[in-house]
Amino acid sequence: MEILEGKRCVLPALLARQRKIRLLLLKQNSQPKRFQEVLAAAEEQGIPVKYVAAAEIDAMTKGRSHGGLVAICTPKPAFEIAKLIELCKNASTPPCLLLIEGTEDAQNLGYTLRSAEALGANAVLLKKHVWNFDAMAVSRASSGAFERLPLAQIEHVEKELLPFQRLGIKFYGCIAGAKRQIYDIDLTAPVLLAIGGERRGLSGALREHCDGFVRIPMAAGASSLSLSHAATVVMAEVMRQRRPRSI
Amino acid sequence: MEILEGKRCVLPALLARQRKIRLLLLKQNSQPKRFQEVLAAAEEQGIPVKYVAAAEIDAMTKGRSHGGLVAICTPKPAFEIAKLIELCKNASTPPCLLLIEGTEDAQNLGYTLRSAEALGANAVLLKKHVWNFDAMAVSRASSGAFERLPLAQIEHVEKELLPFQRLGIKFYGCIAGAKRQIYDIDLTAPVLLAIGGERRGLSGALREHCDGFVRIPMAAGASSLSLSHAATVVMAEVMRQRRPRSI
Repeated sequence: MEILEGKRCVLPALLARQRKIRLLLLKQNSQPKRFQEVLAAAEEQGIPVKYVAAAEIDAMTKGRSHGGLVAICTPKPAFEIAKLIELCKNASTPPCLLLIEGTEDAQNLGYTLRSAEALGANAVLLKKHVWNFDAMAVSRASSGAFERLPLAQIEHVEKELLPFQRLGIKFYGCIAGAKRQIYDIDLTAPVLLAIGGERRGLSGALREHCDGFVRIPMAAGASSLSLSHAATVVMAEVMRQRRPRSI
Repeated sequence: MEILEGKRCVLPALLARQRKIRLLLLKQNSQPKRFQEVLAAAEEQGIPVKYVAAAEIDAMTKGRSHGGLVAICTPKPAFEIAKLIELCKNASTPPCLLLIEGTEDAQNLGYTLRSAEALGANAVLLKKHVWNFDAMAVSRASSGAFERLPLAQIEHVEKELLPFQRLGIKFYGCIAGAKRQIYDIDLTAPVLLAIGGERRGLSGALREHCDGFVRIPMAAGASSLSLSHAATVVMAEVMRQRRPRSI
């Protein structure tokens, strides 16, 4: 069981229905209006709500961000690879997947998911070791994207990624030294965009499977972009190339 | 005086020469090789270096990120508006300024500066109330950009920004409801891009001075981008439109 703190995490988790939420704890004498949407979703889904003393919530939470609301729930489940292949097969628009091989911290990962969702990724794939994160911190930084986005776990690049390539999805690795810029490739086609960790970059195993490499052009003398900001630039370019003029 | 912690902040501060660094404190028995660049810069600039017990450094720092190195220095100075006007007048390429009206936290601001520098902003303008940040946290998140980038303080929009407009710099406000997308405007011209805080958006005073408004197209049902990620998308588009094919 996990403890999700605050409306910012609990409401998206309720609406996304990916976790099983066993119990909601609300501070006694909370303003019902503030938690209206939470209470409506809980009632609809038959989730029990218990009103407890503020001290009880304080004792079970880490930060000060709970605002008098806590959910006791199962962890966010990993999206199965087989299911993700089906999702790509049946997608009404060309799939766009983002693969993250390393992150510095939970917040950076959370922001990456927030941007990935906002800029149209169908799913995010995480290397297995990345999965070992502080889910509460990821969820909070993601502004709900962690709760909604399909997240799949990748352990064996060869075995698990080849089926996506067989579907015609092109793999592009983002590396600093690439000749081509992200702006030079056709991102309206089905694509998987792979980004390495800030320290180690893309692994050899992943590079071997890439159909091409791209970089983000940057000013001379500056430091590189953080992982979540590099992912955002790349995803924004996907959105730019694919955008309908009306959204 | 401020205390800057760790090589990640101290080295860029030394190289940028915007702060006056009075003293460097290094942990006794530090590996000289690790601090080679720091020591070389200190020697060149005549900055005294004192070797002290680790406990002394621990006592004067907040986090665990100092790595045995601390600088005692003046705050990073605000870049004068008059100087920034000159900089824009004499720039060899069309100036690009980023104006930030609000931030949630120091880390977000630091990342915004990091992206702004990496994607070619000449300077960042901050509303005066934003300036009240934890400089150490901003510097660390910025990966040195805070130390290098010209940062100017804006208090009276009317008085301080009009000279930039008179130079022919177009002001664009980024707001969620704008009709035009950031991709629809010519960013190769001299521009100032204004982004509001995540909670309040752009102020009325700033909106009044904008020549136009733009938005970042986003997927339906997702949450918005964080301030630093929105700024990154906007600055990346500036870089895309202006990029020489060779960088």
